[in-house]
Amino acid sequence: MVDVDFCVVGAGFAGLTAALRLKQAGHSVTVLEARDRVGGRTYTENRSDGSWLDRGGAWIGPGQDRIYALMDEFGVPSYKQFVDGDAMMFLDGQTYKYRGTVPLSLSPVAVANLGVVFAELTQMCKSIPPDAPWTAPKALRWDRLTWAKWLDANTLSKPARLLLESSVAGLYTSAASELSLLFCLYQMAAAGGPSFVLGVEGAAEDARPVGGMGAIYRAVSAELDDAILLAHPVRGITQDDAGVTVRSDTAEIRARRVIVTVPVAIASHIVYEPMLPVDRALLHQRMPSGAVFKIAMIFDEPFWRADRLSGQSFAPGSAATLTIDSCTEAGTPGILTAITEGAEARALCRLAPADRRQAVLAAVAERFGDRARSPVDYVEHNWSVERYSGGGMISHAPPGVLTEFGPALRRPCGRIHWAGTESSAQMYGFIDGAVRSGERAAAEVVDHEARARV
Amino acid sequence: MVDVDFCVVGAGFAGLTAALRLKQAGHSVTVLEARDRVGGRTYTENRSDGSWLDRGGAWIGPGQDRIYALMDEFGVPSYKQFVDGDAMMFLDGQTYKYRGTVPLSLSPVAVANLGVVFAELTQMCKSIPPDAPWTAPKALRWDRLTWAKWLDANTLSKPARLLLESSVAGLYTSAASELSLLFCLYQMAAAGGPSFVLGVEGAAEDARPVGGMGAIYRAVSAELDDAILLAHPVRGITQDDAGVTVRSDTAEIRARRVIVTVPVAIASHIVYEPMLPVDRALLHQRMPSGAVFKIAMIFDEPFWRADRLSGQSFAPGSAATLTIDSCTEAGTPGILTAITEGAEARALCRLAPADRRQAVLAAVAERFGDRARSPVDYVEHNWSVERYSGGGMISHAPPGVLTEFGPALRRPCGRIHWAGTESSAQMYGFIDGAVRSGERAAAEVVDHEARARV
Repeated sequence: MVDVDFCVVGAGFAGLTAALRLKQAGHSVTVLEARDRVGGRTYTENRSDGSWLDRGGAWIGPGQDRIYALMDEFGVPSYKQFVDGDAMMFLDGQTYKYRGTVPLSLSPVAVANLGVVFAELTQMCKSIPPDAPWTAPKALRWDRLTWAKWLDANTLSKPARLLLESSVAGLYTSAASELSLLFCLYQMAAAGGPSFVLGVEGAAEDARPVGGMGAIYRAVSAELDDAILLAHPVRGITQDDAGVTVRSDTAEIRARRVIVTVPVAIASHIVYEPMLPVDRALLHQRMPSGAVFKIAMIFDEPFWRADRLSGQSFAPGSAATLTIDSCTEAGTPGILTAITEGAEARALCRLAPADRRQAVLAAVAERFGDRARSPVDYVEHNWSVERYSGGGMISHAPPGVLTEFGPALRRPCGRIHWAGTESSAQMYGFIDGAVRSGERAAAEVVDHEARARV
Repeated sequence: MVDVDFCVVGAGFAGLTAALRLKQAGHSVTVLEARDRVGGRTYTENRSDGSWLDRGGAWIGPGQDRIYALMDEFGVPSYKQFVDGDAMMFLDGQTYKYRGTVPLSLSPVAVANLGVVFAELTQMCKSIPPDAPWTAPKALRWDRLTWAKWLDANTLSKPARLLLESSVAGLYTSAASELSLLFCLYQMAAAGGPSFVLGVEGAAEDARPVGGMGAIYRAVSAELDDAILLAHPVRGITQDDAGVTVRSDTAEIRARRVIVTVPVAIASHIVYEPMLPVDRALLHQRMPSGAVFKIAMIFDEPFWRADRLSGQSFAPGSAATLTIDSCTEAGTPGILTAITEGAEARALCRLAPADRRQAVLAAVAERFGDRARSPVDYVEHNWSVERYSGGGMISHAPPGVLTEFGPALRRPCGRIHWAGTESSAQMYGFIDGAVRSGERAAAEVVDHEARARV
């Protein structure tokens, strides 16, 4: 039985940041992490050749000030995502090579339609207060629509529709029919608008930390040292008048308050005594994650660069939905990442590993040539079946959930406080959102404790 | 460590029926039940005055042949739901007294609109194969729409809209914005159409077992005797080549196969080793339950009957959304039940018990007069916070879930088989559906085992 001021459940970016800020403020803290590693939905693999791979969350961008602040604090520099050369898009049987966000060689109708839709989305996002999207003037109306249904009514061009459906649904690793329009708008608004979440340069995939996300989380972990208990999945949280008892299979932590940072669907696996208030308990059934593979293909050189290709490609429905150049700041070895989401990722799950590898490499070789068939190494990460993430990437809200249950995302339940990127009003779904949520929750527990003592 | 042929998780109607059929076929079976009682989402309270209350699921109707067969088997007779006299409806500031399904004193526009919508729903249901609703010709189109959005486009009259929105959403104890249109149609189709699920006489609330649901589940339990272990919430299920190990806090059951009968969202609380296939694991995050109070008010006599009132009332938005006569076959004492669902139920959760009681009684008294203010007894059951139901009544599918994940509802995962009313192709959401699912799963495990031995 360990006795501390505060307990943190989960050692992803939210949990690590919360614990760090609490420790820096002079409080004792214990972090219980289910996995045998820290990082949560980020996971950097250091390789024998000195390079590294981000098997999970990887990118940072302008406006993500809190992750940049954390990097500054620990002396982790960033480098720019490689974007030179042509990107490729495969839509509705056509191939496009282009630079920038959208292929201008799409039909004029498609380009015009995309422009109008982007402008409209940007405008809609402006009416959404990120700290309370359920209060937006049209919240109720937008929350009864799916992203798919909204596209039905707003995209005249088939390629435009395919592009918007797949790229947005891909963000949430789920189907467009599963997503609330209000939720999509909220997630975009929380990051400054659709051009941020769907963009690369100057946007969501603008840069990466040198050394990968691990360079940050390892530095924070070192600071926290033995305050982190790995391989301790939390089974129960009991509250009483004086504090909380947080129980794993082999440890019991007694603390004044606890910050739970795990994804919403995973938070439901903990047995709460007494039960959580109804809105929070029902919210735990309503924020699903999705399926996603992130696959790194390592080559001696980034050969696509010599071909004046950026490494970016987008082919909805394929075994390699997205590809992107993922070299380190050194530029060698050549690392190309394939990301496959949603239904395509679930289809990949059903293949034997060798068949899956073949399907992915064949899809990539179609775009980048035969050299892509023979990587030096092939590192596949299937987030879909990560027990302690509950699936891939970020949780989404189906229709009706934000307007019915949204306020429960952040509202403390007695001595239980909530963090994790899905609880962040800004940069929801990004690593920066996780950092912000950890800092907010750390301030919250200290504040509640101070008020309780007055 | 108990060693049996088959293990069943959950002793609601699905689990009890599965275990019964297995035992009758000569197999050894153990049922692990989390609660200290059997019955699951049904719960009959026997009272000192000889009467009884169904605090949960209560009704049966024509076509529900498997629950009727179970009653025949154990000699449990049924009696008709009391429906004589006027029902009342309170919509959009107007009061209606009526007989039958819908107040004909609604405006002609509303009545006509309801007729058209009902005819259309009935027609749509006919195109849905209940054993695979995701294959309906318009499945994809209907699964990207919410029930709320479909009503937006199909109800011209405000009272008609209110009625259809509240009554259908109430079935699933959630908001109309949360429900997939395809799901609503499927649930209706699985019961023969909208007039069954929304009707009383000759429909979903046609009759009740004498003695309540407990008369049935107690008889089945007696037959199963010490095969049922109460207060054994299942924590883990491990599969290997030879069988399964099912673990509670204090017991371990070794069996050839296991039937998990708990609601989908609750099935996610079990730790599966190895992890479930991706579609089933993600389905567990996508079938939420809702909030519902069922409140019995007991009076010396059913005084409303003398006033030529049936006891039925419907007032969306009120603290007592629905009321219905719930007397036993004896007719005395007078038992009136209030059922409050969704957002109104969550609002009731936030009141202190005394204030909640006052709010409910005041709403009921407005309809039935001051005598309703002073029941002899007041028995409240808040299913919203039932830990082992995961909320109230039945689980629903949000948009996109049936078409993306539907087949996972019933597909066995190795040696794990699935039952529960939400896995039933017929009478989804009804007690009869639970019975059917239990019988189907019992046959399934025996069949799989026989095939494995060939």
